[in-house]
Amino acid sequence: MTGPPDDVDFARFACPTAPRDGTHVTMGHGGGGALSRELLEEVFLPQFTNPVLAALGDSAVLPALPELAAGGRLAFSTDSFVVRPLFFPGGSIGDLAVNGTVNDLAMSGARPLWLAAGYIVEEGLPIEHLAAIVRHMAAAAAAAGVAIVTGDTKVVDRGHGDGCYVNTSGIGVVPPGVDLGPARVVPGDVLVVSGTVGDHGMAIMSVREGLAFEAPIASDTAPLHDLVAALLAACPRIRMFRDPTRGGVAATANEIALAARAGIVIDDAAVPVADAVASACEILGLDPLLVANEGKLVAVVPEADAPAVLALMRGHARGRAAAVIGRVVAEHPGLVVARTPLGGTRMVPLPIGEQLPRIC
Amino acid sequence: MTGPPDDVDFARFACPTAPRDGTHVTMGHGGGGALSRELLEEVFLPQFTNPVLAALGDSAVLPALPELAAGGRLAFSTDSFVVRPLFFPGGSIGDLAVNGTVNDLAMSGARPLWLAAGYIVEEGLPIEHLAAIVRHMAAAAAAAGVAIVTGDTKVVDRGHGDGCYVNTSGIGVVPPGVDLGPARVVPGDVLVVSGTVGDHGMAIMSVREGLAFEAPIASDTAPLHDLVAALLAACPRIRMFRDPTRGGVAATANEIALAARAGIVIDDAAVPVADAVASACEILGLDPLLVANEGKLVAVVPEADAPAVLALMRGHARGRAAAVIGRVVAEHPGLVVARTPLGGTRMVPLPIGEQLPRIC
Repeated sequence: MTGPPDDVDFARFACPTAPRDGTHVTMGHGGGGALSRELLEEVFLPQFTNPVLAALGDSAVLPALPELAAGGRLAFSTDSFVVRPLFFPGGSIGDLAVNGTVNDLAMSGARPLWLAAGYIVEEGLPIEHLAAIVRHMAAAAAAAGVAIVTGDTKVVDRGHGDGCYVNTSGIGVVPPGVDLGPARVVPGDVLVVSGTVGDHGMAIMSVREGLAFEAPIASDTAPLHDLVAALLAACPRIRMFRDPTRGGVAATANEIALAARAGIVIDDAAVPVADAVASACEILGLDPLLVANEGKLVAVVPEADAPAVLALMRGHARGRAAAVIGRVVAEHPGLVVARTPLGGTRMVPLPIGEQLPRIC
Repeated sequence: MTGPPDDVDFARFACPTAPRDGTHVTMGHGGGGALSRELLEEVFLPQFTNPVLAALGDSAVLPALPELAAGGRLAFSTDSFVVRPLFFPGGSIGDLAVNGTVNDLAMSGARPLWLAAGYIVEEGLPIEHLAAIVRHMAAAAAAAGVAIVTGDTKVVDRGHGDGCYVNTSGIGVVPPGVDLGPARVVPGDVLVVSGTVGDHGMAIMSVREGLAFEAPIASDTAPLHDLVAALLAACPRIRMFRDPTRGGVAATANEIALAARAGIVIDDAAVPVADAVASACEILGLDPLLVANEGKLVAVVPEADAPAVLALMRGHARGRAAAVIGRVVAEHPGLVVARTPLGGTRMVPLPIGEQLPRIC
């Protein structure tokens, strides 16, 4: 090859869009050059402070985990967040992105440890909005005791995104002896939900559709790993956990029924729903069982352990309104039904899609 | 609460968009319900076949890693891919997504093991396009010896994406005794590139801008972990690796210079560039040092090891055109310069943005 001439003007080679106005994200912020580094140093690194991230390698190299030598296993999870709007009552896409992956790890019984964060940002997003999302993620990570150890930012053209999509992946460690899953579920077990259902979905709907309900509804976004750890310590016979996000408790119950090859009967009257959420669902003709949650879990436990599980949940900040909502049965394997307050029975099918798209 | 009446019509609660036409992605495919499951069972699971994924838990629980007990360390990486177009000469967003994260892990000296895949799909994408991306990912994962063990799919409204964005995160294990990084770089070391530079970026440019060059240019997307492992086995004194993706070799050299607090001098005449890429760069006024690669690495090695490193690379399928392209110096720490073929010196600054956005 022959090199370019000595008098080359490097400015010519920069991103064709205005490199920056100082306040909005430009295409160049995703180019891996000086603007990317500026974003890293000014927006990300001041919030995500930890020695692993500070090394800025192509990948994060993690400290040793003594639990693995003792028979613990790694848990690994990923989730992308595309919620609209980016900020809503009770939280933001940043809170969801951290708590969502923390909770996916926790549902396997894992202690969440490390997160990776991937951003797809739309050209023109105010940098202050991105910075707010990052601050929320840093606060949520600190609250959940996890470190954000590696990341990536891409920028897409104006009109080709929705401000910001966030992906988080996480690594946790499942303590030795913990082995949860639907294979352990047997008829006679009961389903316990850790609190009111439908809060997150109705919070998004209220702000997105401009609906004003009697009382404001806030998202329940919260980390659940601490509740899970306390439950496993007290009741090691717990069969499994799952968090009822998209598709709500209805989707979760169907997934459990399918995977466990058992039937599930839900007691409609026992499902805890906050008054404001119940009112909003009635107005809109929605079933709270189908509405997404971001800070609740469903535990399947032996019936004999249910009182202890309930007592523990109700004494924990994340489980105040816990309730037994259903039972695993040998009949109709793979299907979920609900007993209505009037004494009837209705099918609770796996929802086709989601009542309210872009909920998380 | 009171439950809904017994004669409730569940179809009413399904996704408000047409649930499916069988050939295109709809909003409901991202809802976590029956359509999501259909996509999982028909598109993803048949390609990503492994027992960890098959458990379909909220997170993947991974098998034990004996290397960790022996002093190995985990490596963790994430990358989002937003390349346009989705399919291009030499590969697709699927190949990039697997090889990109495999390579980020490999640059830390890690043996890549497990990947997580997160999809953000635009409503209306032909399912056959998504299936093709998934097939490419499965083939790339098989070629790289990694398993895709967990995943997530979200759907965004028509016009709010670009067909498909893919995030991959990966876990690998850094063998005991391997500890790479810029802290090990010292003046006198040399930079070796594993092959021709600029192929990926010019392949994308040729297809995206509708340019017809003399010869077709194909992306170099390829996994590099095997080359890295062979190099580390033969030359344990290798200081560090980095893959020159966005921003090309120029960005990589600047990152190394900054992190190592040393200067770097590149020999322009020594940088290998394929004839077709060199011609295309001349026509367009681009510097190949600034153009992205997806299957090349830069190794920093002690000068005494350079002949062995070069010989090994040239004998490996991923390193046929390897060359020593520069040297680490004590002068001008943090800065990169190039000696031109005419004997002059030019600055090689960290590019501001990226010459060609959406390259990966």
